[in-house]
This record gives sequence, C-alpha cells and structure tokens, in this order.
Amino acid sequence: MAYQLWYWPSIQGRGEFVRLPLEAAGIDYEDCARTRGVDALIADMDTRGPYAPFAPPYLDTGTMTIAQVAHILTWLADAHDLAPTDEATLFWTIQLQLTVTDMVAEVHNVHHPIAGGKYYDEQKDAAAANAEQFRAERMPKFLDYFEKATQANRGDWIAGDRWSPIDTSLFQLVAGLRYMFPKRMEAIEDDYPGLIALHDHVAALPGIVAYLASDRRIAFNEDGIFRHYPELDFA
Amino acid sequence: MAYQLWYWPSIQGRGEFVRLPLEAAGIDYEDCARTRGVDALIADMDTRGPYAPFAPPYLDTGTMTIAQVAHILTWLADAHDLAPTDEATLFWTIQLQLTVTDMVAEVHNVHHPIAGGKYYDEQKDAAAANAEQFRAERMPKFLDYFEKATQANRGDWIAGDRWSPIDTSLFQLVAGLRYMFPKRMEAIEDDYPGLIALHDHVAALPGIVAYLASDRRIAFNEDGIFRHYPELDFA
Repeated sequence: MAYQLWYWPSIQGRGEFVRLPLEAAGIDYEDCARTRGVDALIADMDTRGPYAPFAPPYLDTGTMTIAQVAHILTWLADAHDLAPTDEATLFWTIQLQLTVTDMVAEVHNVHHPIAGGKYYDEQKDAAAANAEQFRAERMPKFLDYFEKATQANRGDWIAGDRWSPIDTSLFQLVAGLRYMFPKRMEAIEDDYPGLIALHDHVAALPGIVAYLASDRRIAFNEDGIFRHYPELDFA
Repeated sequence: MAYQLWYWPSIQGRGEFVRLPLEAAGIDYEDCARTRGVDALIADMDTRGPYAPFAPPYLDTGTMTIAQVAHILTWLADAHDLAPTDEATLFWTIQLQLTVTDMVAEVHNVHHPIAGGKYYDEQKDAAAANAEQFRAERMPKFLDYFEKATQANRGDWIAGDRWSPIDTSLFQLVAGLRYMFPKRMEAIEDDYPGLIALHDHVAALPGIVAYLASDRRIAFNEDGIFRHYPELDFA
C-alpha cells in the first residue's frame, strides 16, 4: 500500500521536507490533500483519535500515524534503508535534522513574529525588525553550522556514500533561502561551498530531477514558510 | 561513568527537560557547567569537532554526544528502559515530545519576538502583542492537545503504568506556564484536569520530590525560557 502523506495542498511548507526523500527514493505515496482537497485533510485529522497529530504533515504508514518532520524522516530512513548504519553518525544526522526544524521555525517567525494566526500585513514592522536580525545574525550562524557539517564527510553527502533525508532537507533549506532572500543569499553564498555543492548533488538525483520538473512540486509562494517579500531582503 | 550534561548553569531553560528524567530515574550525571562554570561549557562546545551540537543542551553518554532535547530524551528512555515498549505508543510519545519542543519555542518567542540576541526591554511592544495571541490562541490550542493526550491512557501516566520522559516534560510545561502566566493559568487550569493530575503525579515521584527540594533545581528566573513579566499576564 502506498503511504498516505497528509499536508496542506497549496504550499511546500514543512511537508516538502517529507515529499523530497519520498521522491528521491521512489517510494510510493499519495499526497492526500492534493488529490482529495483540503477539507479532506481537516476531516482526516479528526478521525485520528487520541493519537492525532498536533498539525500536518503526518504520514500514515499503514500501521502507524507519525507526525513531526524529523520524526517522520527518521522512521522513513530506517524503514527504507536510507539512514547511516553507524549509530553515532545516525544520531548526528537526526540532530542535524532537528536543527533544520529549528531554523525553519525561525524562518517562519521572520514574517510572522507576532502571531501565526494573523496576516503578514498586520505585522510588517515587526517582520522588518525580525528579518534584519535574521539576515545579520541567524542566517550566518545556522549556515556556518551546516557548512561545517558538510565538511565532516569526504564524499558528496552528509554521511557515507549515499544520500539520506538530511541531504534532501539541506537542499530544501538552500532552495528556500534563495527564494526568500535572493539578495542576501547572493551576498553570502560563496561562504558555503560545501552546502551549495550538497544542494547541487541532491538536485541532480534522478528522482529529484523528475520531481522538480513535475507538477507535484508546488512553486514557492507567499502562503508557505519561505516567502519572498522584497522589503525583507537586503544583501 | 556518569553522563555529562552540558547546559547553561543559571537557568532551567531547555536543559531542565533533560535534568528532570535523569533525576526521576536516579541516573548518575554531572551538570557540567554548574560544577565547572559557563566558560567550561563554551570551551567544551569547541572541542566537539564536526559533530558539535548547534546549541546546549547536549549529553555526552561516554560514547556519543547527543543534542536536541527530544533526541536526548528518546535515547535516554531507550537506554534506561523508560520508554513505552509498544512501537506505536513509543512513536506517539516522541511526537508529543517534539510538540512540547514547538510550544517551548513559541514560549520563548513571547518575550523575544524580534530577536533572540536582543534584550526583552528592546522588544517590549512586540512582546505584548505576541503574548496577547499566545494567551488567547496558542495556550489553549497546545493545552487542549496535551489534555487530550492524557486521556488516551486510563492510568496515571501518558502511556502504560509508569512514567516516561514525556511525563516529566509535561510537568515542566505546566510548572513553567504557571510561573510565566499565573493569572492566565489560574483562569484556564480547570479545563485541563488530566494535565494537572499528570503534573501532580510527576511532582510526587520520589526522585522529583528530592530534586525540587535540592539546590540542583534552579529557580525560575527572567533569563530562562519561562519568564514572569506581569505586563504580559492577564486572565
């Protein structure tokens, strides 16, 4: 049976971090809210009982429902033999993934510093202030960290001689930051050669090439996590 | 060998979610920055090489360094036979813990909506606006969710007939919210009988009773995650 992935159907958002390794590995899945509509997603969450997820994305494996991106990816990598086999390396990649989660939350806070439930237009001044510190302090801090992670291994990937979900996640982070902050990324990208090389290796995986060219890849837009507001982007 | 826990020595912060199950289970650990000072923490992070954590807390198990609270707790529960043995239940408790992580990040954003690197006094207006939506929207949403989680099991704990780290984490969440928002919590606590009962069961564990009475339990303060600013607390 194909896995059921449940996520908002009109954005990449956090769901994209799950779609990417599914696509890269050629794992059969249904992106349920895209085929059945957003009302089906809301209705489905209500059917999951006491073990219901707090929020999408979640994956129905046929025997379990798993929510939280890093948790889904850890399970997927284990179930499909994508994970590093050395325990210390495996644990390190999970920790890296959880740090991606932290950065994604901070990316969301850039345009929604006051309230996730209010529109960007209602918090533009605070967003401009948040974006300023994000560009100056947090982007380099996180990217320096991930750049250093790319140097732990001598190959094309974060660990060993094959990709694992942390690679597709770092690809998405670079792609998203380029969309959200094109000027800022252009100004600092040369400081991150390992990370950019990793992005390019993921982009060349056959499953990712096919996915990015398909209509399954939703375009970045201003409802997602990575939003391009020119007034927030400076070199 | 005692585990080495590395975390900021003057706050409960995220480290407290690790200290609590260590204390409840009577696991031997050194809270290294409390015994050796904060400079030792900063120096230690620099010695961890390519697998260095992004930020404290992290646990040196003797063979591995593990960062990220939920990741540390998952490992600890497995290593010390604290975790639910049923896979679906185990996965659900990990997902709950990651949702605690999400709520803790939002708690931090209440008083630091613009920049984690700036003082609260530099972002008080934005904090007041964030706190308003947090009290009205996010607190009930998260607490409703955790309350429902307490109803999945018929016993004293989230899962099975013994405590696991998600129980100590939910204890800390209730304790922290009571410190940060005493008026708001008093107004809504009656809606969460399962969660309050769980808090009380954890508070009565012998290891926790001893810990809370010791000077190892740092008092809540205005450098930590849960900060009491009376101007942010309304019923």
